[in-house]
Amino acid sequence: MSKVNVVVGQSGGPTAVINSSLYGVIKESFAHPEEIDKVYGMVNGIQGFIEDRYIDVKHDMTEEEIELLKTTPAAYLGSCRFKLPEEYSDAIYPLIFKKFSEMNIGYFIYIGGNDSMDTVHKLSVYAKKTNSSVRIIGVPKTIDNDLTHTDHSPGFGSAAKYVATTVRDIVMDASVYNADSVTIVELMGRHAGWITAASALARKFENDNPLLIYLPETAFSLDGFIEDVRKALQVNRTLVVCVSEGIKDAEGKFICEYASETSLDNFGHKMLTGCGKYLENVVKERLGIKVRSVELNVNQRCKEMLSSLTDIEEAANAGVYGVKACLNGETGMMVGFERSDENGYHINYVTVDCADVCNQEKEVPAEWILENGKGVTKEFIDYVTPLIQGENIPVMENGLPKYCYRK
Amino acid sequence: MSKVNVVVGQSGGPTAVINSSLYGVIKESFAHPEEIDKVYGMVNGIQGFIEDRYIDVKHDMTEEEIELLKTTPAAYLGSCRFKLPEEYSDAIYPLIFKKFSEMNIGYFIYIGGNDSMDTVHKLSVYAKKTNSSVRIIGVPKTIDNDLTHTDHSPGFGSAAKYVATTVRDIVMDASVYNADSVTIVELMGRHAGWITAASALARKFENDNPLLIYLPETAFSLDGFIEDVRKALQVNRTLVVCVSEGIKDAEGKFICEYASETSLDNFGHKMLTGCGKYLENVVKERLGIKVRSVELNVNQRCKEMLSSLTDIEEAANAGVYGVKACLNGETGMMVGFERSDENGYHINYVTVDCADVCNQEKEVPAEWILENGKGVTKEFIDYVTPLIQGENIPVMENGLPKYCYRK
Repeated sequence: MSKVNVVVGQSGGPTAVINSSLYGVIKESFAHPEEIDKVYGMVNGIQGFIEDRYIDVKHDMTEEEIELLKTTPAAYLGSCRFKLPEEYSDAIYPLIFKKFSEMNIGYFIYIGGNDSMDTVHKLSVYAKKTNSSVRIIGVPKTIDNDLTHTDHSPGFGSAAKYVATTVRDIVMDASVYNADSVTIVELMGRHAGWITAASALARKFENDNPLLIYLPETAFSLDGFIEDVRKALQVNRTLVVCVSEGIKDAEGKFICEYASETSLDNFGHKMLTGCGKYLENVVKERLGIKVRSVELNVNQRCKEMLSSLTDIEEAANAGVYGVKACLNGETGMMVGFERSDENGYHINYVTVDCADVCNQEKEVPAEWILENGKGVTKEFIDYVTPLIQGENIPVMENGLPKYCYRK
Repeated sequence: MSKVNVVVGQSGGPTAVINSSLYGVIKESFAHPEEIDKVYGMVNGIQGFIEDRYIDVKHDMTEEEIELLKTTPAAYLGSCRFKLPEEYSDAIYPLIFKKFSEMNIGYFIYIGGNDSMDTVHKLSVYAKKTNSSVRIIGVPKTIDNDLTHTDHSPGFGSAAKYVATTVRDIVMDASVYNADSVTIVELMGRHAGWITAASALARKFENDNPLLIYLPETAFSLDGFIEDVRKALQVNRTLVVCVSEGIKDAEGKFICEYASETSLDNFGHKMLTGCGKYLENVVKERLGIKVRSVELNVNQRCKEMLSSLTDIEEAANAGVYGVKACLNGETGMMVGFERSDENGYHINYVTVDCADVCNQEKEVPAEWILENGKGVTKEFIDYVTPLIQGENIPVMENGLPKYCYRK
């Protein structure tokens, strides 16, 4: 069997560990010199690959840079948001496979979320249609944890750890004055509340803050919220509330839309405001109490120094397993996590059909959400706790984390 | 000489290291059993003390809790914002000193910023007036680094490290797409730009982002800013800008005030918006480009896991030195940092007169700000770099930092 080359890409929103998966792909590829020759990295995903933008890892990266990938946030190769056309008759497909052929690509590995798995699926279908031998494999990545057919996705554990530690710090900070106050923390998650649910880990003891947690999976009532806040303040002078950016009312309208509709910027235009800022204004108006909102924003997906070691290791393993799947002749599959908690937390790496994964979203199961819709159950805590274990200490230089980046 | 008791308090906004100073005060007090008996902690500063709210450290804290203080953010004792009256004839003064007498307080140690040093000054003046032997000492604390007569203040190093690492992460995150984009990071600092200036440390190489940094010390021009952004985008597709919350125009009007004046919330009221959000809207309107704003908010002062070990140690030393100053018979003084860079960075702990410190603010010196007003000089980098050295690993439990807190 003649040797083939690997091409690997990163796609969609960055995470703290997407480079760790890239590390896994590179290391495992180079561990099979009999089968694999070069590893190419698409710059800006499939979009850049089409435009002939790629690197040759062995040629363009030093050993040190490859090692640094493990603890470098964001996407070393650059990312894209690019959806392949539905029609396989589109000229883009033969163009891509012509490049595969010219570059002697045998294995195509794509690290990403829903949309990226759609790319993996489509390329694998096209390969089948055209009897191409190129094997197409997806490696999961999303802070949102909304990929189906896997216990969880690389990126989520670090986001969860960031949120849990940061909300714990915010609760400490919010509690110093002997005065009534409300702090609203807006967390990522447009459709699925996994990240917001992880804020429950911040509690140091039962009935600690955050006392109220609202996920997009449950209909949000503004009046109910104000009543919840009023009641909670009767017991605790300091109240910390966590809300998902994607909370919506019973009609399915995003709460943040209410803000945009009614807030005008200085040009008379609608001002895009998060739901946290909106709720801050509502609490101020209705309860006349000291209130602050905090939006954790992109830090949820890029705070390398607060990432989970478990997540980093699993992300690397997922990359490794992606290469193994190619070597085993698989295609059109995504690496999935099969979990066992019998003798302590353990992950089996498997492959699942991308056709089943792409364009779907996994929400927090209803049975893990409290019946009153204001928090999560112990089952969720048991689910998420192993994912945040272990601290990642990046390589430090002069008091700051050292990262690798394309020159 | 008979033994006296110490009373220690925390005041003003919390920081990542104000508890480390408390740790220093407690440990040093207990190291002098011949002179010092009990250590009382005012709950919610002088305000709580007046209301008879305090703890007896030896009785109310375990050894483990005392050790945890070193790496617990916010204010263990609780804080207050309380200014003593200007008139020494006010009944509050004899009330406080009566309590001192009843509790056999010999040393009063107050950890805080400008306003707290005002408290230290006033109490020491009153003690002198009334021939009280109580010694009153201040221990500096402020993330803003605006205290005069000290090279820097505990709290700033950790805020600077948090900002530097976080902006570095945000730059990584912002750079993944092959598209023009602007990210505006709003940082703390209403009157002094120290924290915002520290974002310059985030650069991984010359001409790396953040490419534009605006401090409150320099007049901010909206037209000039838009022109700066336009020019920067001609060279870099990804632009990250750091602005201080307190930037103001040539007339001294805060930029965030423009936003509040022109943004209405859903009740028709002025909406309090930061300058970052305001600038985001202006960039979107005038340049029609993808733009995002990120406000780092309270995380700048409470992110324990990203704090500076140097800062933590200096904060503890400042607490220790505060007790030593009392033992040496000093009063009305604040612990100050005298710096030498001759044979490597070194701090000498000294005392400075609170009368000179209180109600003043130290801005970033004009000679450390670039002439074009869009960044800082190498002198500032040399100044701040030693302050962020060393990583603090808090005690971890189940993947999360373990903190101590009053039950």
